[in-house]
Amino acid sequence: MPEFGIEITAFAWVPEVAQGYVKDLRPRWALEEAGLPYSVRLIGPEENNGAEYRQWQPFGQVPAYRDREMKIFETGAILLRIAELSENLRAWDEAERGQQMAWVTAALNSVEPMVNNTVHPGIFHAGEDWVEGFQPAADRLTAMRLDSLSGWLDGKDWLTGRFSVADIVMATVLRALENRPLLTERPVLSAYLKRCLDRPAFARALDGQLADFARYEAA
Amino acid sequence: MPEFGIEITAFAWVPEVAQGYVKDLRPRWALEEAGLPYSVRLIGPEENNGAEYRQWQPFGQVPAYRDREMKIFETGAILLRIAELSENLRAWDEAERGQQMAWVTAALNSVEPMVNNTVHPGIFHAGEDWVEGFQPAADRLTAMRLDSLSGWLDGKDWLTGRFSVADIVMATVLRALENRPLLTERPVLSAYLKRCLDRPAFARALDGQLADFARYEAA
Repeated sequence: MPEFGIEITAFAWVPEVAQGYVKDLRPRWALEEAGLPYSVRLIGPEENNGAEYRQWQPFGQVPAYRDREMKIFETGAILLRIAELSENLRAWDEAERGQQMAWVTAALNSVEPMVNNTVHPGIFHAGEDWVEGFQPAADRLTAMRLDSLSGWLDGKDWLTGRFSVADIVMATVLRALENRPLLTERPVLSAYLKRCLDRPAFARALDGQLADFARYEAA
Repeated sequence: MPEFGIEITAFAWVPEVAQGYVKDLRPRWALEEAGLPYSVRLIGPEENNGAEYRQWQPFGQVPAYRDREMKIFETGAILLRIAELSENLRAWDEAERGQQMAWVTAALNSVEPMVNNTVHPGIFHAGEDWVEGFQPAADRLTAMRLDSLSGWLDGKDWLTGRFSVADIVMATVLRALENRPLLTERPVLSAYLKRCLDRPAFARALDGQLADFARYEAA
């Protein structure tokens, strides 16, 4: 196995509600699928706002990523990069590579923003007076995108013919809706999400993120 | 010049408020920068909901894109593809290609969703009772991302060292804020947007989109 010296960043600690949902879960999952060795650099409180880290991750978020050739940020870019390096995740031809790029960016731009508008008000703005009126408008847009996605996935196991990094991004997006009617009322999507989350590499990635938080809390 | 047989889709017509802002502007701009020949397939009313088009663009949106090897959708994927095919836009090394991928996906996932939440309520939900309470919350998140972006761009002409498809995506995102205080109060971003929109290829792309609508209205 080649040594790419892959390093990703993750937060040293986040509040309990966010544990298991921080976005470094995506590259962890992809790297576990790929079987590529990697190390995790934990970013402490306030370090993410420092000038040095902002040169790597301009928005002060996680994850950031680097390997022998690239020092980048944003989960979409990172997962496309990991796919290039992985025997397991690499596209077999240009048509498949195109579909991977399309579905990674679709999950990030055509599904996740709507899902965030459905989920975030109840977490970050509970009780504010605009939430009750906003929620149905947000849910309508989310439902529309989920219907399109369900139409695409009907009769398919994965977004692009075989499991890819696009499924990792989409599953982590849909997981924010777990147990909500928007998801449970769409059996194609519920089954798809279960299929994704049942993969052993997802469990290893989740365990990895949670174990880092547990170590921080114990210290 | 190689003949890639590039085709993109655009809507045959949209209401006046959207004319000049439909997202096929992005690949038009990139293809004008690239100097690659392309044709535009106009999608009529309801055709976007048809089963055939949904096989190409599962969300029924524009643009979709195809060339000799790829049949894809989503502007992020399309612009990364056009960059690969273009002598003008192609990255010179892996480090630069990584930065292009990172900034294309950052514009789509870390900036555009916040800008949409700032801009869309006033367009699509004017007068609804939740808008007044929602607006300041949305604008705060947008301001936070714009401050990070301004910090990155301070002293730079372009996102990644030289003009790239990432600037096309970011400029079309920021353009939705044109003349708003969120943008005018950040001179680094105002100057960056002007630098992008002053490029002759942007004018050609905009003229192309508007001319297609004018032909439809005249017919």
